[in-house]
Amino acid sequence: MAEVTSQPIAPPIAQPTAQPIAQPPRGFPDDEFAGRLMRAQIRMAAEGLDGLLLTTEPEIRYFSGFLTRFWESPTRPWFLLIPATGAPIAVIPEIGADCMARGYVEDIRTWASPNPMDEGLSLLSATIREQLGPAPRLGLPMGAESYLRMALSDYARLQALLPEAAWVDCTAIIRALRMVKSAREIEKIAYICDLVSGVFENLPNFVTRGMSEAEIFRRFKIACLEAGADDVIYLVGGAAPGGVGDIISPPSERATADGDILMLDTGAVFDGYFCDFDRNYAFGTVDQAAHDAYAIAFEATEAGFATAKPGATCAQVFQAMADVISAAGRAEGGVGRMGHGLGMQLTEWPSNAAWDDTVIEPGMVLTLEPGLAIGPGRVMVHEENIIIHEGGADYLTRRAPVKMPQIG
Amino acid sequence: MAEVTSQPIAPPIAQPTAQPIAQPPRGFPDDEFAGRLMRAQIRMAAEGLDGLLLTTEPEIRYFSGFLTRFWESPTRPWFLLIPATGAPIAVIPEIGADCMARGYVEDIRTWASPNPMDEGLSLLSATIREQLGPAPRLGLPMGAESYLRMALSDYARLQALLPEAAWVDCTAIIRALRMVKSAREIEKIAYICDLVSGVFENLPNFVTRGMSEAEIFRRFKIACLEAGADDVIYLVGGAAPGGVGDIISPPSERATADGDILMLDTGAVFDGYFCDFDRNYAFGTVDQAAHDAYAIAFEATEAGFATAKPGATCAQVFQAMADVISAAGRAEGGVGRMGHGLGMQLTEWPSNAAWDDTVIEPGMVLTLEPGLAIGPGRVMVHEENIIIHEGGADYLTRRAPVKMPQIG
Repeated sequence: MAEVTSQPIAPPIAQPTAQPIAQPPRGFPDDEFAGRLMRAQIRMAAEGLDGLLLTTEPEIRYFSGFLTRFWESPTRPWFLLIPATGAPIAVIPEIGADCMARGYVEDIRTWASPNPMDEGLSLLSATIREQLGPAPRLGLPMGAESYLRMALSDYARLQALLPEAAWVDCTAIIRALRMVKSAREIEKIAYICDLVSGVFENLPNFVTRGMSEAEIFRRFKIACLEAGADDVIYLVGGAAPGGVGDIISPPSERATADGDILMLDTGAVFDGYFCDFDRNYAFGTVDQAAHDAYAIAFEATEAGFATAKPGATCAQVFQAMADVISAAGRAEGGVGRMGHGLGMQLTEWPSNAAWDDTVIEPGMVLTLEPGLAIGPGRVMVHEENIIIHEGGADYLTRRAPVKMPQIG
Repeated sequence: MAEVTSQPIAPPIAQPTAQPIAQPPRGFPDDEFAGRLMRAQIRMAAEGLDGLLLTTEPEIRYFSGFLTRFWESPTRPWFLLIPATGAPIAVIPEIGADCMARGYVEDIRTWASPNPMDEGLSLLSATIREQLGPAPRLGLPMGAESYLRMALSDYARLQALLPEAAWVDCTAIIRALRMVKSAREIEKIAYICDLVSGVFENLPNFVTRGMSEAEIFRRFKIACLEAGADDVIYLVGGAAPGGVGDIISPPSERATADGDILMLDTGAVFDGYFCDFDRNYAFGTVDQAAHDAYAIAFEATEAGFATAKPGATCAQVFQAMADVISAAGRAEGGVGRMGHGLGMQLTEWPSNAAWDDTVIEPGMVLTLEPGLAIGPGRVMVHEENIIIHEGGADYLTRRAPVKMPQIG
């Protein structure tokens, strides 16, 4: 069973604070999962689905609490069946039975895996047939940002084992559920955002000019772990004269120097929930162009923040930020959007993009991520994490400094 | 361009040593990628394939050198086209262009992503048509341990955009190439294996009885980072009286105590290459049953090591280990196999399993991972990493102690 915690149902709205947030409890009580299941089944009924078949880490974890780094091994598929009525059923490799039993799911069926001759397909098809009959209408995530985590040849075999089943895209159901976070989810995200904010604020105390990018990355990860992060799964950025260009490559062994701008963008996790934000620092004296870009990105974030409230669309939040950048006579940074959802994954739906008309709701956790060109091949990107509530938004990250902090 | 290094072609065989291995160069010279491409194209010709379409991180990195933590975001698909003749072509989101340009691929085509209305499909289908004609025979990994990393609905759209294309499983080609490591790949794996061996040997100096599992995990990750690991992507295990049961759950806040056995199983990385091995420790005085199980697992590893040589099969390596365990009157540990390949991923083909008749070749990097029950709900798992050469195998990890080390 999951760790049970007493907790109010109303989302705790984080306030910007220099006082660290206390570590929230790990896991979720059963009623969290019961709520998720109920909301899924209401939507399944509306769409006439007999079941959902889930194969990916966040979807299986969302309905079961199954949290493990074991997903890093691609060898074994994992299946969770959400029936139209009743409790979820896990059909998983034997090695995961104990871990799965710690969570919400009680009906756990296992096979000896790996077994490429029959990688759970007999057991899964028999379970589907037993629970939903020979001709179920089955939802499978097939839309944008979703994947099928099983071999394509096995998917074809499964379809052959269930020749009367109809396979339907259920991305919209999963998306609608996961986009709106519960109070307990928000508490975990708020904690990791605050923790990493503190590490960023302290960075000038453990990073000095002359360190290599690789060394700075290493020290940043260590500082996050020491502060209580479970993992620093994502860290990109770098340092370069006047600003970075390539923002996703690994760190180099090049020594940082006067005039460099250091940008770090991180997704650290607590109990399976991510933060995703960045900070910029100047080593010594940097170009005025970089300070100007920093000020524009800061103002764009403010504009996005003011727009992000229930009833507004993500396209409007994007436009508010884009307007600040174009009013300053600058071009966008080439990331393709200016923020996105986050939570169980580093990036989730929706996108703050011109094409995304998702209406913002209380409980959504979003990043605001305006970016602009500083000059040729150099970009300035700001990123903050916010929570939407009835009256607007609050920052989950401690707001970046108004002026770019200087190191050395 | 990738970082160029001068290096002998013969695999450097690691010798067990207490002297740390020096950090090898990052990246690969172009001839490494040219060799991979050539070997792929020879196999493609034999199977009558006009191209390979790759969508997953290790496959794209294998042929391009594209190394980034950005894969952690599920938002954007990435495509690499390997034509039957000529150079690879990357069809990728604009945000990755600079990072991709650092590697082997020169023909890089980008689209503004995310764009759920056309997530690269027009560009990709036009590129395939331009390069391979309207009716290509296209290889896509569809077999065991492979995935398609694009939305299923987009895969259907792509098939509709190329109505005359034939889609064929190319898992065997990818598997055959990646199973046999180059000298430069082995050098990176040997380095991270040796580095983490040192951290494990030093563990009794930074872990004390009474620390929680969570604290021990945190300190272990910090020690790996301080020793020079890029990331500790995978860490599972735990501590429990007389031995652990559930070996994949996250660490708890429970304080370790006298009589506990601590098992840590880790996949740390250097330059995108993994180690994957574990170590066991006794807190104070533990049951004799645990010491006995440790001795059997140690002996089973020796038997696997003696069997792992060119010409033997993975099934034979499995059987050698299983025989030691059954000769001792014990049952296997329920992991489903006793080791596997590793390199760019934590686990790769082949499997040391009764069903895997893969013939072992020089250049393969394998784990030996015998496991057995200590008692009800408690398992003892040993894991070492080895490299196969003409004459047999060598350990890449420094061999675990003959007797279980004791802490406190």
